[in-house]
Amino acid sequence: MANKIVVALGGNALGKTPQEQIALVKNTAKPIVDLIAHGNQVILAHGNGPQVGMINLAMDTASRTEAKTPEMPFAECGAMSQGYIGYHLQNAIREELLERGLDKPVATVITQVVVDSEDEAFARPSKPIGAFYSKEEAEGMVRDKGFTMIEDAGRGYRRVVPSPLPVDVAEKETVKTLVDNGHVVITVGGGGIPVVRKGHGLQGVAAVIDKDFASEKIAEILDADYLIILTAVEKVAVNFGKENEKWLDRLSLEEAEAYIEEGHFAPGSMLPKVRAAMMFAASKKGRRALITSLEKAEMGIEGKTGTIIESL
Amino acid sequence: MANKIVVALGGNALGKTPQEQIALVKNTAKPIVDLIAHGNQVILAHGNGPQVGMINLAMDTASRTEAKTPEMPFAECGAMSQGYIGYHLQNAIREELLERGLDKPVATVITQVVVDSEDEAFARPSKPIGAFYSKEEAEGMVRDKGFTMIEDAGRGYRRVVPSPLPVDVAEKETVKTLVDNGHVVITVGGGGIPVVRKGHGLQGVAAVIDKDFASEKIAEILDADYLIILTAVEKVAVNFGKENEKWLDRLSLEEAEAYIEEGHFAPGSMLPKVRAAMMFAASKKGRRALITSLEKAEMGIEGKTGTIIESL
Repeated sequence: MANKIVVALGGNALGKTPQEQIALVKNTAKPIVDLIAHGNQVILAHGNGPQVGMINLAMDTASRTEAKTPEMPFAECGAMSQGYIGYHLQNAIREELLERGLDKPVATVITQVVVDSEDEAFARPSKPIGAFYSKEEAEGMVRDKGFTMIEDAGRGYRRVVPSPLPVDVAEKETVKTLVDNGHVVITVGGGGIPVVRKGHGLQGVAAVIDKDFASEKIAEILDADYLIILTAVEKVAVNFGKENEKWLDRLSLEEAEAYIEEGHFAPGSMLPKVRAAMMFAASKKGRRALITSLEKAEMGIEGKTGTIIESL
Repeated sequence: MANKIVVALGGNALGKTPQEQIALVKNTAKPIVDLIAHGNQVILAHGNGPQVGMINLAMDTASRTEAKTPEMPFAECGAMSQGYIGYHLQNAIREELLERGLDKPVATVITQVVVDSEDEAFARPSKPIGAFYSKEEAEGMVRDKGFTMIEDAGRGYRRVVPSPLPVDVAEKETVKTLVDNGHVVITVGGGGIPVVRKGHGLQGVAAVIDKDFASEKIAEILDADYLIILTAVEKVAVNFGKENEKWLDRLSLEEAEAYIEEGHFAPGSMLPKVRAAMMFAASKKGRRALITSLEKAEMGIEGKTGTIIESL
């Protein structure tokens, strides 16, 4: 059965160095290509936490040395991370496809995700990025650059940026055209380059869009059948790590909402995944979200494992 | 008259900082959109010399500080530069299109250009990249990393990489599909991420592919009508800067070859442009190459200025 599937891959699954990334994407490619080999159309979204953090840190550090490279805004660091990660991912997937005799093009589209400048997240930046600074340095950055800095228990001060919700995907027509023509597309890397509308233009903002929500948005736009959110575990659990831990095969929107209210899912971890899954399941009849591990993705689509979230 | 046009833009036209780049791409967008507004299909290729140099320098510098970010191979720096430059270019072009009521998608495709591992350029690396080092540092880099280092008159030692010829564009099907569907495509940024074939895979190499030759390659692949190579001057000249300086309206392949032999064109500057133009003109009857400035591109297509190279 051929489905259109958006797969959301975590940035932590991509390692911390280029060598690690090249090795890890080879593992990623196998289950992705399993899905493709069975006739599914696959769109790959991915996180970029460690990678954009590394790029931002390197740019920031070098700009304060004798090298005097220019300061690089965070949105531009995100654009760089899409090129860096996409290059490795597209190669690994393309190679795995060819190994199996599947001559399918694979492409990375530099993707901007539009957020609302009135999003309430801008009023309370919360996502830490980049290096640690001393109190004096941090005060200087607040004064000179208007950054929001928070103290991180014992490790110094760190910049925080807002995490607004995705409103639209600027390059959606490009992604659609490629998917419709049988290309495997890598898009909304790191949740997308965050931009706000300004007249006819788009302007980069220092923000981090949750990659699960960005994946959900592109899945809706593409009218996907499945949104697969990959995580370290095979299924979602309630009472995770406790005696009465229970792994869930299936979750209705009502059950998911009740579990969220009971505080079963960790913010910044399983919670955004469940929320994005619920949003997709609720967006149209027949749409299903699956939360599972990379290795179990295909078994999950076959209904054999993972946690399915759907509106009944 | 609608033509398919590959435009090759120099990296020097994109500035040295993100702020400069954002300002400069707005100027770039206008003549590009003029071409589009008159019904032409435009594919944009661009250089990345100053940009990949900056990224490479920042990555290299930061890796040798306390930040200890990982060392970044040169091919990965190229992938980052495609994201960084493409993000700004696609925004400026899209905004200019919308200002004129043209709702055309614009996309940056992360593009690898295949080179031959047997290319003789690999035997004589000549393109300097990155920072300057002391003699001792340079010797260490030769010993530990196998780099080729050359002394740069009085400024220290610098790494040099080979500049092989492009053989193929890995993402050509993606570029074709998008062009055929009316998208404006930004591709082969910086001459493309340089890769060699290895079994079914592609492997990044430390090299710089001349963006004029990479543009020529994608122009051939796309069966373009025109290759426009942008430069700082309106026309190609012989005896440039001398009393008997002569600006050329039209060049046959034979004339161009004769002028090259007479040493009229500077290596690393006008020479590769003329060579790439000749290669395109020679590749198929009716194909024309135009060397001119950004501002004069459209007048050039109309036959009113620039230097046209064609096989007669």
